[in-house]
Amino acid sequence: MMRTRPLKVALLGCGVVGSEVARIMTAHADDLTARIGAPAELAGIAVRRPDRVRAGIPRELITTDATALVKRGDIDVVVEVIGGIEPARTLITTAFQHGASVVSANKALLAEDGVTLHAAAEQHGADLYFEAAVAGAIPLVRPLRESLVGDKVNRVLGIVNGTTNFILDRMDTGGTGYSEALDEAMALGYAEADPTADVEGFDAAAKAAILAGIAFHTRVRLDDVHREGITEVTAGDMASARRMGRTVKLLAICERAEDGRSVTARVHPAMIPLDHPLASVREAYNAVFVEAEAAGRLMFYGPGAGGAPTASAVLGDLVAVCRNKLNGARGPGESAYSRLAVSPMGEVVTRYHVNLDVADKPGVLAQVAAVFNEHGVSIETVHQQVRDGGEASLVVVTHRASDAALTSTVDALRRLDTVRGVAGIMRVEGE
Amino acid sequence: MMRTRPLKVALLGCGVVGSEVARIMTAHADDLTARIGAPAELAGIAVRRPDRVRAGIPRELITTDATALVKRGDIDVVVEVIGGIEPARTLITTAFQHGASVVSANKALLAEDGVTLHAAAEQHGADLYFEAAVAGAIPLVRPLRESLVGDKVNRVLGIVNGTTNFILDRMDTGGTGYSEALDEAMALGYAEADPTADVEGFDAAAKAAILAGIAFHTRVRLDDVHREGITEVTAGDMASARRMGRTVKLLAICERAEDGRSVTARVHPAMIPLDHPLASVREAYNAVFVEAEAAGRLMFYGPGAGGAPTASAVLGDLVAVCRNKLNGARGPGESAYSRLAVSPMGEVVTRYHVNLDVADKPGVLAQVAAVFNEHGVSIETVHQQVRDGGEASLVVVTHRASDAALTSTVDALRRLDTVRGVAGIMRVEGE
Repeated sequence: MMRTRPLKVALLGCGVVGSEVARIMTAHADDLTARIGAPAELAGIAVRRPDRVRAGIPRELITTDATALVKRGDIDVVVEVIGGIEPARTLITTAFQHGASVVSANKALLAEDGVTLHAAAEQHGADLYFEAAVAGAIPLVRPLRESLVGDKVNRVLGIVNGTTNFILDRMDTGGTGYSEALDEAMALGYAEADPTADVEGFDAAAKAAILAGIAFHTRVRLDDVHREGITEVTAGDMASARRMGRTVKLLAICERAEDGRSVTARVHPAMIPLDHPLASVREAYNAVFVEAEAAGRLMFYGPGAGGAPTASAVLGDLVAVCRNKLNGARGPGESAYSRLAVSPMGEVVTRYHVNLDVADKPGVLAQVAAVFNEHGVSIETVHQQVRDGGEASLVVVTHRASDAALTSTVDALRRLDTVRGVAGIMRVEGE
Repeated sequence: MMRTRPLKVALLGCGVVGSEVARIMTAHADDLTARIGAPAELAGIAVRRPDRVRAGIPRELITTDATALVKRGDIDVVVEVIGGIEPARTLITTAFQHGASVVSANKALLAEDGVTLHAAAEQHGADLYFEAAVAGAIPLVRPLRESLVGDKVNRVLGIVNGTTNFILDRMDTGGTGYSEALDEAMALGYAEADPTADVEGFDAAAKAAILAGIAFHTRVRLDDVHREGITEVTAGDMASARRMGRTVKLLAICERAEDGRSVTARVHPAMIPLDHPLASVREAYNAVFVEAEAAGRLMFYGPGAGGAPTASAVLGDLVAVCRNKLNGARGPGESAYSRLAVSPMGEVVTRYHVNLDVADKPGVLAQVAAVFNEHGVSIETVHQQVRDGGEASLVVVTHRASDAALTSTVDALRRLDTVRGVAGIMRVEGE
């Protein structure tokens, strides 16, 4: 039996994503009604600048008073696509207090203070869904929270930021430097006027914190995520990677330690082999590997950002939350019972590509090798290239070693007379 | 508050998948309890041959009377991993009548008679979950039923049968013929003693019917799916594909017609470009593309079969169904409100690779081209190769045309004196 009272939806934010959510809710109203079991009706749209509202958005729904909208009391679901910490956090908690469930695309807020939001949802018996906060249209939050809930996830590794992938892809295929590639990304709308959140890895780190939390059923705070951006990746690094049959990608990596008692989460540029599936993820696309004990190795690929793809994820959540409302049910809440420790970066074990400028003298390689050996870092390959002026470059790729051991090795290398400088250090993943 | 009464789970079947489900339920009992909110306890395991039961399975749970087990009345969830139509269908419907929800991995039954099962679940207010029925561990049913439920899916295209992918991969990389590759697949346990269900495309067709139904919110019966297996793919086809920069894969393709009013579903070998992501899906892996209006192009990749991966999907569903039981809620049921027509194969539009043996005479190419033209099939490329004995081979790749038009073209070509034979016809996809 079709319920006649429509579910009322309040939309907070009407930018690139919000306007697309509003458009699809109108254009596909009949399908959404059939799939939910009742109509979902836009009851109000809160914006900061009402004069900027896009074509096709009913003017009478527009308000600048978001607080009053979420306090109305007749709102079933609040869709938050404003982004940022405040006023989003206060609006979401107010929405829960007034009986609404929430669909949010806000990765920064969920990474910063997911605990508060989840607790508020729990307290008021409401849903908090956030598929759109990680990897745009790619179903990743739901597969981790629901499909793999009977399995043990050991690793999540992927490209979760489209802007930086676009820039690195351009550097790789065009041989350009970082600044030039960034300019191109800005010109094409792939990077914002202030690209800091993307290029410094803040956006990817927020997603890593969210993914690690749901994958390992624990809490991982944004501060727990080791973060390095791509601003120091050079055309030289990219060329060096190419010569070794690799390319450079900004990766988010969440791992369970081998003893199972702790986890790590990190975002940094890394070299991966050209035949690794992530190497062929081009432009602004995202792709994420999930490794689980029983399932094995899964990959999810798709558009990681953009108005329509993000709106697709928001609408999937909206339908689910509306169904729950109709059934008087709740979807999965926060699952953080594991309470695992988050280990510092020094304990992360991986491989390294170390590029040294050295004197072109007999015995230098032996000296360098001895330093690696003294610090317990085993060398896999060394490539030596003599340059003009009595100098040479030495590219060392190591076996697996802890970040702490590698750091001490590099400190000791810097103290060698024969080492003129450390031209670059990059982690090597996916082999 | 943790509910003390455990949820009781009956397992039907204890082969490769079932024994792995039982193992994980025991080994990870604490995690499953935390994730469900109550313990899930194995209450009975029905098998045909109790002497065959594997190590680690508690003997006291074993019964040969599956009917009595599902009729016990205290069973919360029945996990059906027997496969086949009967007795699985009767056991599942009996389970619903006795108050249980059901998790099934049975693609054949769901494709053959999903309507009956969904109706029985609906009637008794129970859940029917079946993630494991399609593409093993890869989350695909849930993303289509839930993540993309607010979007409009236009196409599902992928490799959904591991056995045939293993065989075709071996033919491609080893240059071997079909029989030799099949023997290897059998020796390595990738193909069953009777490989018919896999190599004739029945297994993939069942998955295509299920995927088309959930993707397009309509009913697609197994009989609606056009089906061709891989038994007629030759080493020559594979070599011909290679020469054109392509490889051969068995694809399941579900498409919405451009007018939106009908859909098609088909399984057949097809040539795809070597740089297409599906071309690099090796061995027994599966991968599926989903194209949706707002989300764009998504890909899901992973192990499509095997005990542990399939058990991972079963357990994800088991947790979801147990949570629903605890909350007195139901997950999404069948969504077939669209009631779209399923068009016959003749209306499918795609491209074709046609390999002709022709007389090596002037004017043959013109004659052949005229036949294509008369039937409205536009030619994209022609490769002519002269062989010994006054014969030549002609490989024609067409632009997009309907299957019906291509069939008439080939019939007319066979009637030409200068055409000695049609050595092979294969569809070309993914370009």
